[in-house]
Formats: sequence, C-alpha cells, structure tokens
Amino acid sequence: MKTISENRCFGGTQGVYSHSSTSCNCDMTFGLFLPEESAYGPVPVLWFLSGLTCTHENVMTKAGAQAWAAEHGIALVFPDTSPRGEDVPDDNAYDLGQGAGFYIDATQAPWAQHFKMWTYIAEELPGLLGDSFPLDMERQSICGHSMGGHGALTMAMALPGRFRSVSAFAPICNPTQSDWGRKQFTAYWGADESKWGPHDATLLMQGPGFDGPLLIDTGTDDQFGDLLGTEAFAAAMATKRQPGTLRLQKGYDHSYFFIATFMEDHVAFHADALYT
Amino acid sequence: MKTISENRCFGGTQGVYSHSSTSCNCDMTFGLFLPEESAYGPVPVLWFLSGLTCTHENVMTKAGAQAWAAEHGIALVFPDTSPRGEDVPDDNAYDLGQGAGFYIDATQAPWAQHFKMWTYIAEELPGLLGDSFPLDMERQSICGHSMGGHGALTMAMALPGRFRSVSAFAPICNPTQSDWGRKQFTAYWGADESKWGPHDATLLMQGPGFDGPLLIDTGTDDQFGDLLGTEAFAAAMATKRQPGTLRLQKGYDHSYFFIATFMEDHVAFHADALYT
Repeated sequence: MKTISENRCFGGTQGVYSHSSTSCNCDMTFGLFLPEESAYGPVPVLWFLSGLTCTHENVMTKAGAQAWAAEHGIALVFPDTSPRGEDVPDDNAYDLGQGAGFYIDATQAPWAQHFKMWTYIAEELPGLLGDSFPLDMERQSICGHSMGGHGALTMAMALPGRFRSVSAFAPICNPTQSDWGRKQFTAYWGADESKWGPHDATLLMQGPGFDGPLLIDTGTDDQFGDLLGTEAFAAAMATKRQPGTLRLQKGYDHSYFFIATFMEDHVAFHADALYT
Repeated sequence: MKTISENRCFGGTQGVYSHSSTSCNCDMTFGLFLPEESAYGPVPVLWFLSGLTCTHENVMTKAGAQAWAAEHGIALVFPDTSPRGEDVPDDNAYDLGQGAGFYIDATQAPWAQHFKMWTYIAEELPGLLGDSFPLDMERQSICGHSMGGHGALTMAMALPGRFRSVSAFAPICNPTQSDWGRKQFTAYWGADESKWGPHDATLLMQGPGFDGPLLIDTGTDDQFGDLLGTEAFAAAMATKRQPGTLRLQKGYDHSYFFIATFMEDHVAFHADALYT
C-alpha cells in the first residue's frame, strides 16, 4: 500500500492511499479519515460510497463529514467508484465504465476483468483496512450518495450482520426500473434479466429488509428525482414495516451542498448505532 | 448580473453569479451564501478572500463555512482571486497573472488594464452586493487564506471603519520580504519599491494596526511556512499591542483540511463582532 497524502484534519488525519487490487486487477485509491481517538485504540468505521463520476476525493473534500466524524470518534472510508487506468475499459458516457462501477461484479466483456466493485467493497477493502489501520471492523456502518446510496442500501441488506446502520443521500433505490440501472446492468451483466443479481434496494426491501436503523434524505428539487425510484422504495419500506426514516427535504437538489447540509445528522445517526 | 447557479444549502442558498466588472474590464464571477434569515431582512456579511490558484469555488465547496454562517445568520461572499478570460494577460507560473491577483491595483503593462483587484473588492463588488442582495453593508467582516489572508489583513487595516473584525488562515503577512509578494509587486507595480503601495500586513501593523478584533491561525507544518512572514507579523502585533490572537496549530498544513478544521472558530469570532 502506498501513501498518496496525509493531512491533519479536525484533530485527526485525512489520508489517501493506493494499493494493487486483486479483485479489480488494477491500482485502487481510497481516502481514510482517522479521528484523534484512533491513536489510542481501534475506532468504529463509517463507509461512504460515492455517486456517478466521483472518485474517492469528492466526498472527502466537499461533504464536511470529517467535522462530525471527529466529534464522534469515527473513522470514514471513502472508496473510489470504479476501477481506473489506461488498461481499464471505459465508455464515453458519464454513467458507464470508469466512475460508474455501480457496486456490482460485472460478468460481461469487456467489463468483467476489472469491474468487481461488489467484491472490492464487500471483501477486499475491508480486509486491507482491518489489517492496516486501527479500525474496529466489528463496528461498521454504511452511507452513500446516489449510485453510492444504491451501493450502501444493497450492501446493508445483502450482507446481514455486517453493518449496524445504513443511510443514504438521494439514493438510486430501484435500478432495475430506471435508466440509472438498466443500462449499466445490461452492460455489466448482459440483457438476460434473470441473471441480474439481487442488487436493487427496493427488491431487497421487499425481501429481507435491513435489521437495523435506516435513514434516507432526498431533496424535493432533486434534478434526477425521476431516476431514483424513491416512491417504489418508500412503498416497500412501508409494506415491510422496516424501521427507518425517509425525509424529503424541501428545496434541496442532488448536489454536495445538499449532502453537506445533512451530513451532521447522518454521522450522528450512525454514531448512535456504532456506540450502542 | 447573471445567475450561474443557486443551490439550497443549510436552509439558505449558495449562489454563483457573474457580472461585467468595470474595474477589471472583464466578466467576474463570485459566490454568495445567503442564510435563511436573509428572507426576512438584511444580514451581516463575511468576506472570504481566497489564495493562489483558487477561483471563487474552492472555499465555497471545501471549507464547510456555510454550516457555521447558517448557524449565525451571516452571508458569505466568495470573490474570485483575479480577472480572468482569454483577453486577460496571464503567466505560466501559478503565482502570477490569472489566479494570482494579490488584491492590488496593477500599474504596469500588461497587467494594468485588468488587474485591479483592490478596487474590485474594496469598491465595485461591495456596491453591487449592497444594491442586489439583502445584505447589511454596515456590518461587514473579512477573512482570507494565504494570498487572501494578505488581502483580508491589508483591506482591514487600510480601510478603517469598513470591517468590524478580521481573521486569516495561514496569511501572507510580509509580502515585501517574501517570494510570495516581491515577484508579484515587481510585475504589477514595477521594480521601484518606493512606488509599492502600503499593501503589506506587517508594515500596516507597524502603522495604523486594526481597530477591532483579529484572529490568525497558521499550521506548524505549513509547507509554505517560510513564505508567509508570520514571525515578522507576530513581532509587529506584539510591538503594537494589537488586540488579537495568533494561533500556531500543531501539525496542520496549508490545505483546506486545515481551513475546514478551524472555520467554525473563525465564523463564531466574526459573529461576535458583527452582532455587537
């Protein structure tokens, strides 16, 4: 593992590291915020999965999350959103290929060789983090934005017992019914929908649901609102009697200004679960 | 004036606007955060002047300032750091020309036609803001980072009565004795130092000082520490018996991670002065 940068930040350290990924077959970069408390022992971990076009860096610099993580003594992990590099396939569209991994394992050419973001986030990166940093991997929670909200919700439900709480900002909630989902699943998994994995938050909510607290914030003025499937997920939550909170925030859009506004609430929400 | 974008943010609005500047002879862009309270009447104003290479956008997206401005009901102005455009002279160096206006009025070719950042910030932009937005221009304070800290300190001292309080993150404090200053003053004002204006915070502190509270944070691990002249300014502050606080923050560098860490303190410091 290589240290790209380390900056003092809210009494802790905001680091950026890269490593050779076996699941993605390329070098992968991630951000990690360690609060001051990590100098004295392992701290709980909050994952933040980012949206389309983002790298590890957007949330690290724009969301103001470190302030609240420092207050609660929680580490933050900011993974990249896809494999990257000259040898990694890409597409001219912003929503396919590099920057658009969708947190699934591709099975179709040309994507299958590198686009294994499910395995990377669910297995490889947690192993590396637990071995390399003072993190208490028994206490993990997960959050995400847009495509990363899809990742957070599906990981939380498909990996029962892994995460104590899940939250999302403007998540893609029903990708099998949206242009943000069908296009990518078709490319990464092929056109045969029977072979699409259970990576749809609404379908997972109709099945197992999530055994823990759940929080979602979505803006009423989200410019991508029609692509998110919030209504289907809300109905599934209500039908399931899933404990959780869905807030529609008046006037907010899809931007990091929206995320930053409610980040304090999300980190406090996860801290409650991580310190119980 | 043209609206570039407006995003809901911490209960208020983060806007970006452009206008044709008479002082800089080009279009200029600025960011303005208006807190929720501005819907009910004029609110006090905190200026933030940014550093080398920055546009209006860096502090707007990376410093977390809106959270605290919203808490205190204060507007934030984020000006650009220089004139810009294809017709505006530039230099290949990062620290001269576009992105490096140094908050002074150039007198030398090719800079003099556009590089009038002193007049722009001290006269033109305040007039435009007061006419166009619900701002109480009788209650202004100023803050800045690096080159913008130089701008904030020199504006505060050279315009007595204008600003109720001044603060800075890692400010350039003694530019007439630094490579961050001598190079630009020579280019913009010419080699004859007798014609350099009184735009050096240490010299101004040795003269009038500042009639109000002053706060400076600079990191002990600032990678540009030798260029800032903090020691000269500290000595001048002490000699002058200038009321104020200079904090050397252990382990912090020159980055926005440092700025974000102490932004809450700076906004609260200005709020104290603006609401007195």
